[in-house]
Amino acid sequence: MKNKRMMNMKIGVLTLIFIFLHLTARPVNVSDFGAKPDGSDATYAVRKALVYCKNNKVSKLIFPKGRYDFYPDKAVEKYFFISNNDEGLKRIAFPLFDFTDFEIDGQGSVFIFHGYTCPFIVENSQNIIIKNLSVDYVRTFHSEGKIIAVNDRGFDVIFDEKYPYKIEDGQLHFYDNENNEYPYGNLLEFDAGKKETAFMAKDYWIRNPLNAEQLSDNTVHIQKSGITATVGNIMVFGSAYRLVPGFTLTDSRNLTISGVNIYHCGGMGIIAQRCANISIVDVNVTPSPRTGRVVSITADATHFVNCSGKITLKNCLFENQKDDATNIHGIYAIITKINSPTEVELKYKHEQQTGFKLFKPGQEVELVDAPALVTIATNRVKTVEYLNKEYMLVQFENPIPAEIKVKDAVGSAEEKADVLITGCRIKSNRARGLLIGARGKVVIENNYFHVPGAAVLFEGDASYWFEQSGVKDCTIRNNVFDNCNYGVWGNAVIQVGSGIKKEDRDRSRYNSDIIVENNTFNIFDPRLVNIYSVDNFVFRNNTIEKSNKYPEQNKASDSFVTASCSNVQINGKKQ
Amino acid sequence: MKNKRMMNMKIGVLTLIFIFLHLTARPVNVSDFGAKPDGSDATYAVRKALVYCKNNKVSKLIFPKGRYDFYPDKAVEKYFFISNNDEGLKRIAFPLFDFTDFEIDGQGSVFIFHGYTCPFIVENSQNIIIKNLSVDYVRTFHSEGKIIAVNDRGFDVIFDEKYPYKIEDGQLHFYDNENNEYPYGNLLEFDAGKKETAFMAKDYWIRNPLNAEQLSDNTVHIQKSGITATVGNIMVFGSAYRLVPGFTLTDSRNLTISGVNIYHCGGMGIIAQRCANISIVDVNVTPSPRTGRVVSITADATHFVNCSGKITLKNCLFENQKDDATNIHGIYAIITKINSPTEVELKYKHEQQTGFKLFKPGQEVELVDAPALVTIATNRVKTVEYLNKEYMLVQFENPIPAEIKVKDAVGSAEEKADVLITGCRIKSNRARGLLIGARGKVVIENNYFHVPGAAVLFEGDASYWFEQSGVKDCTIRNNVFDNCNYGVWGNAVIQVGSGIKKEDRDRSRYNSDIIVENNTFNIFDPRLVNIYSVDNFVFRNNTIEKSNKYPEQNKASDSFVTASCSNVQINGKKQ
Repeated sequence: MKNKRMMNMKIGVLTLIFIFLHLTARPVNVSDFGAKPDGSDATYAVRKALVYCKNNKVSKLIFPKGRYDFYPDKAVEKYFFISNNDEGLKRIAFPLFDFTDFEIDGQGSVFIFHGYTCPFIVENSQNIIIKNLSVDYVRTFHSEGKIIAVNDRGFDVIFDEKYPYKIEDGQLHFYDNENNEYPYGNLLEFDAGKKETAFMAKDYWIRNPLNAEQLSDNTVHIQKSGITATVGNIMVFGSAYRLVPGFTLTDSRNLTISGVNIYHCGGMGIIAQRCANISIVDVNVTPSPRTGRVVSITADATHFVNCSGKITLKNCLFENQKDDATNIHGIYAIITKINSPTEVELKYKHEQQTGFKLFKPGQEVELVDAPALVTIATNRVKTVEYLNKEYMLVQFENPIPAEIKVKDAVGSAEEKADVLITGCRIKSNRARGLLIGARGKVVIENNYFHVPGAAVLFEGDASYWFEQSGVKDCTIRNNVFDNCNYGVWGNAVIQVGSGIKKEDRDRSRYNSDIIVENNTFNIFDPRLVNIYSVDNFVFRNNTIEKSNKYPEQNKASDSFVTASCSNVQINGKKQ
Repeated sequence: MKNKRMMNMKIGVLTLIFIFLHLTARPVNVSDFGAKPDGSDATYAVRKALVYCKNNKVSKLIFPKGRYDFYPDKAVEKYFFISNNDEGLKRIAFPLFDFTDFEIDGQGSVFIFHGYTCPFIVENSQNIIIKNLSVDYVRTFHSEGKIIAVNDRGFDVIFDEKYPYKIEDGQLHFYDNENNEYPYGNLLEFDAGKKETAFMAKDYWIRNPLNAEQLSDNTVHIQKSGITATVGNIMVFGSAYRLVPGFTLTDSRNLTISGVNIYHCGGMGIIAQRCANISIVDVNVTPSPRTGRVVSITADATHFVNCSGKITLKNCLFENQKDDATNIHGIYAIITKINSPTEVELKYKHEQQTGFKLFKPGQEVELVDAPALVTIATNRVKTVEYLNKEYMLVQFENPIPAEIKVKDAVGSAEEKADVLITGCRIKSNRARGLLIGARGKVVIENNYFHVPGAAVLFEGDASYWFEQSGVKDCTIRNNVFDNCNYGVWGNAVIQVGSGIKKEDRDRSRYNSDIIVENNTFNIFDPRLVNIYSVDNFVFRNNTIEKSNKYPEQNKASDSFVTASCSNVQINGKKQ
């Protein structure tokens, strides 16, 4: 009798364990929550599915392959400060807040977003995989017009119906079919044949809608005196804001995005802030093949701010986005007041950095001579009071050295991300390829670059962008640099562009230990390397091939410019 | 021995009680926290003082009489949805969040605000008194220019240095000395002599900065074809946004504001939402006498949304503000979907209503035939899920009647505020005097009105402003209506302006029980009363005096227009 009861109990417990394991191990299918690949709004179904998954510790949410549409109406809403993008109250189709051990598998689905809907925001989460899906929008945040005439006063364009617009009070405004406006702040010409920024095309920054006149159906004359452009090319009206990044990863760790196409979004493709261990594998930022657009997304393909651990970009395609392929850096806050030997008031100076939670008690920081970007001392945060999105009061454990003054910078000294960028194709976008400011081991290998600015740029400054940078170990090898610098955004293929004024460069060695080896450079412009304030730079065993793909430029320029550097070796020769 | 110890203990306890009472009863002086009336930024001192007061249950914070300055830099920041104003991340000089039994006494001080700093936000608080202080700004949110020439293409103005501006790319932009921009969205002419909106002046709404040309120092030609204006008058460039109301009262009760001058703010003077029992006594909304401005504040002097209990406006001056003296109403949410017999999806349709927390479980609501504003049924909220700032899902306890369809309205049926408006002077502002939609006992007596639109307007609609209204008991007596309707914002002194189309008015009696008695009407325009959809309207014992203060208008119009009404008595005669 007793044994039987024991047995029954055991069976009961095992059954419960089985049910539990079954429930948690079995992927949840989004169609069980009402999401349908039929053009209807899947947002609320996904919202319910995600709540269910979190509450029931489900490890995987799958989408039967198809097209799913996401509207802002029923999306979760939350205010986000997203570095290098625009802050705001966001509608989020996939709000992955406080998830652990969770995977979303699109199984090849296409997700089409409507209006100002942010696809994915991952916050306070860990061990997250997002894979096998494409992101696109019914209406892009930028607009494209085919140039059919150009004169001194402006130009005429034809707009495809994908870019609805109105001339209102004599001014050009872009809309979608729900009457949401899509403001523009930039004009940039793209080469229609090459599908890249037009040779040496420059940015025209625009503050207010341009004066315009309807000529005939879909043909508009736009006033812009002095503009240069070529008939037959595409004029891109760039988004004025970066309100809708594709994948926002914040305060999370162990994140993988793989097998994902980002055909469009209204901000950066993948922006990670205060995250650790991020793998971006087989991610294609590219204009949707079904649309014929020349622009993929409206800003950088990827971007990493104060991230740590390992950052991997592997087998990715980053093309035709309206800014760099990646930028890996920290943030400098600027000293606005020294209240006591151990207390400072700090300010975020750039409006796309406000609201960033840079410091926490116990954190190691560096105190930086801002003009030269020289770390004067490290210290540790005792307390931090964020007064608002701009200002904070920070108490340090140790006194601030006398050399540190108002206008100097404070950054985190903790993140030393290792970076691997491999097997990627980076091309035809606005501006540069890789902006590298990670302080761990950085390896850039087996990539293909064809960008209109520098292919690899070492930036960082405490005066304009306030981006903390300064590599300590960077290897650039086995890459193909194919006719870079066909635009206006660089002065060499490998370039330092840190914001250190000439008079301060000698005392700075902001970047160090950069090796460039075994790469192939196809060039129509002799400028290969232009660096300053670097210690230990080696350029060796690279193949340089002359090209006539573009008109020869800067014929008289040096291939190697190294100023205020030490321990420079170019092709075996100490400089 | 024992007695002595008892005695000592008693003395100890009494001492503690004394210290406790002393500490809590004694007002805290803001100067003890470092606030100085010397032009320095008092914001952080006030911030610390308020934290201290809350933590220590201090009942009163006093300011030694003087001028205190408040900058946004160290102000508390929080996102607020403020009805009929513009939502956003606000910097707040006096964040009275979760206070009970607390008084701020300015003792006659002047508080000068800089930039986009909100003076007072009271949230989740009760028994709050704010008194004896003035609010002004170093730079107004609107700008004023003296008109010196007018022609077909536009007009020329002189700007005083109080209104810094720049002509950028040929367009006029306003700034302050810290380079914050002050966008404008409206032009309205004020009579320089009478210091009121110019006779029959109309609003010009503006979307983008106007094209302009610098003529000489501080003199600007502004392109605006077809504008009418008079040389010598003041052109007011009205603020494009209402981001910075003076006093925001939200989700609080038992609130008194007295002895306060609101010389300026960038939104409504006092906006209360979801509050109960509000006394506004001896409050003057008026241009600061030291400035010579014609405009006081940029929107309504006061405004009450879904407030309950008693609302009192006593012995106030509301003049020269850019909108009505008050508006007391609720909010209608609109049915966008009927999901089940007891569940609806609702939307806030007006963008200055989004984010409003209109419903909570257990709340009594009314289901309203939107075109006619007829309540079909009441019901009770079982659950509410706010999807985001626009949409919510509401489950009712009882089934929705079949007459209620998509596009009909749902409002709260609970607030039935009593209103007393007495001893107030209301004059020279844009638009109307009082917009009355409170459903308790409303008494408007012993006031003086000289407004360019209707003096008392009964609005409310479920199609444009979505403001719930409909009085049930309103007495208007012993007031002086001095030459109202000298502008374009009304068709009679006492007017119904509910958004009910003509064909729906017969079946609606949205307002009822309105008595107008013992008032004096000075008129240059015969139109006294224009109402519809009212049950029980009495007009008696009023004195009508003809005036020639303005050119005679609408000579042929009827003094009394009553359509689709029942039980109307005019001067003893049933209509």
